[in-house]
Amino acid sequence: MKTNALNSYVPTLEDILVAHERIKPHVHRTPVLTSSFLNDLTGAELFFKCENFQKAGAFKVRGASNAVFGLDEETAKSGVATHSSGNHALSLSYAAGRRGIPCHVVMPHTAPQAKKDAVRGYGGIITECEPSTSSREAVFAEVEEKTGAEFVHPYNDPRVIAGQGTCSKELMEQTDGLDMVIAPIGGGGMVSGTCLTLSNLAPEVKIFAAEPEQADDAARSLRAGHIIADDAPKTVADGLKVPLKDLTWHFVSNYVSDVLTASEQEIVEAMRLTWARLKIVMEPSSAVPLATILKNKHIFAGKRVGVIITGGNVDLNKLPWTL
Amino acid sequence: MKTNALNSYVPTLEDILVAHERIKPHVHRTPVLTSSFLNDLTGAELFFKCENFQKAGAFKVRGASNAVFGLDEETAKSGVATHSSGNHALSLSYAAGRRGIPCHVVMPHTAPQAKKDAVRGYGGIITECEPSTSSREAVFAEVEEKTGAEFVHPYNDPRVIAGQGTCSKELMEQTDGLDMVIAPIGGGGMVSGTCLTLSNLAPEVKIFAAEPEQADDAARSLRAGHIIADDAPKTVADGLKVPLKDLTWHFVSNYVSDVLTASEQEIVEAMRLTWARLKIVMEPSSAVPLATILKNKHIFAGKRVGVIITGGNVDLNKLPWTL
Repeated sequence: MKTNALNSYVPTLEDILVAHERIKPHVHRTPVLTSSFLNDLTGAELFFKCENFQKAGAFKVRGASNAVFGLDEETAKSGVATHSSGNHALSLSYAAGRRGIPCHVVMPHTAPQAKKDAVRGYGGIITECEPSTSSREAVFAEVEEKTGAEFVHPYNDPRVIAGQGTCSKELMEQTDGLDMVIAPIGGGGMVSGTCLTLSNLAPEVKIFAAEPEQADDAARSLRAGHIIADDAPKTVADGLKVPLKDLTWHFVSNYVSDVLTASEQEIVEAMRLTWARLKIVMEPSSAVPLATILKNKHIFAGKRVGVIITGGNVDLNKLPWTL
Repeated sequence: MKTNALNSYVPTLEDILVAHERIKPHVHRTPVLTSSFLNDLTGAELFFKCENFQKAGAFKVRGASNAVFGLDEETAKSGVATHSSGNHALSLSYAAGRRGIPCHVVMPHTAPQAKKDAVRGYGGIITECEPSTSSREAVFAEVEEKTGAEFVHPYNDPRVIAGQGTCSKELMEQTDGLDMVIAPIGGGGMVSGTCLTLSNLAPEVKIFAAEPEQADDAARSLRAGHIIADDAPKTVADGLKVPLKDLTWHFVSNYVSDVLTASEQEIVEAMRLTWARLKIVMEPSSAVPLATILKNKHIFAGKRVGVIITGGNVDLNKLPWTL
């Protein structure tokens, strides 16, 4: 491993093993599904790790639970806090609720009512901000100051990355060896956890990341050799808009073989195909890996490939192929 | 067991055990999913056996595979035949394809193109008839005569019932004991297989069947003490329109505690709820059990209940809650 100048603690294999024991009572060991139709179509042997069936509907509950249940009693009393309008907010609210501590979520007032309702449904306490980075940071600083809550970043946090790493640990246990693993990349929390697990437990397994062409900051970062952050990219894969940060960049730059991209149309088609053939409800973000496999068959043909389905929180009244 | 005057062979536990070994290479051992949200909502502990993830998208592949792979070489050469425009046609085509023998399917020319394409996709040979029982029977007799193919009835066949019985055998193996099992009922193939398995392996487990109010022939049959068959009932649960026959009536009348019913709206709401919470794609028919649990909470509260999700073949462009 290259040594990087990092401000934060770099999690280790030991952290993943501790995380897995710690979160077991609070998360599902999600099943791995296969489809001979999709195998025939891609020429690869695909193993779909279904985190859409996870508690709170996404893998994010692994990292959130590890952070929440790893707090000492004194720190835990003041609760946790984050800024997110997506699955991390849901997951942190769920985990905090399980521990019986408060979870403060800063969210733009423009966020869909359904998302606010879902966070409140898990017991999260919402403070609204304006839909801008400056307002979010200012409001979040106020909430932190007032509550003394522990900040849990959606991905650039060693506790979160160690938690996400438990997903590929299970995937390896559930399959008889893999050649490659591919996961969607936004901020890089899942991909970093996957890198941490596989570089230690199965360093022969290649790791690919998949992202929308219209939010291809990770692909460009990897090519440039430094983090490139886009300002508000637009994509149907709304979980993948956020940029890499120092800790996730450390893992991505050291261990990811390539970042592959797919167009909006390719993502929606792969999503519909997965719903139709795997019979699972999953988010557009989760379809990006299959979309990239379908357009890069030469990379995956003949290989045993783990595909991480990251989440299933989607508006059933607004499916992208019917819009 | 009461003795009934039956024309056909009544399958036994031994037939299920043989069937399970026979079909193992050709079917998935489908996972069992749980949802604490749905447990809280119903007051029961629900274990969803996900046959929507099964090969060809439905439990029917169990019975079809048992029938196809149980044929002697000589009989198998002429292939198999059935009349169905639903999951049995798909499943029989799939199983015959795996064995490398022909599968003849008689189907009304009015059947949706997507269904015809799906059967042909699995290698089935379609002969079209008029959309009436008389035409179907006449055309089917011709096909049988011409091809010498072995008729495999969608449900009133001991080989099919023994195959379907492997589903609840797995469900019992995958859970630490159940108090009740509930499955949708149309012709009664799945329910009969469930009765056969549980009456032998776990006779303390109560068996419930669930059907649409608008196709409640099984409920009325159970009350009347004889088979009542409806003429072309209309329901969103299109897999549940067919009537009981002598062999399935034998099992239903002897072993089913009750047949519960739900309205069209209740079925669609339970379907949407399952998609949203279990994150699975399943047919309206598969939602009928949950719909009946939600309106009969007193029966299921505090119980460990196996719920059979029978299939996942649904038109993703025409979801019933968006119509």
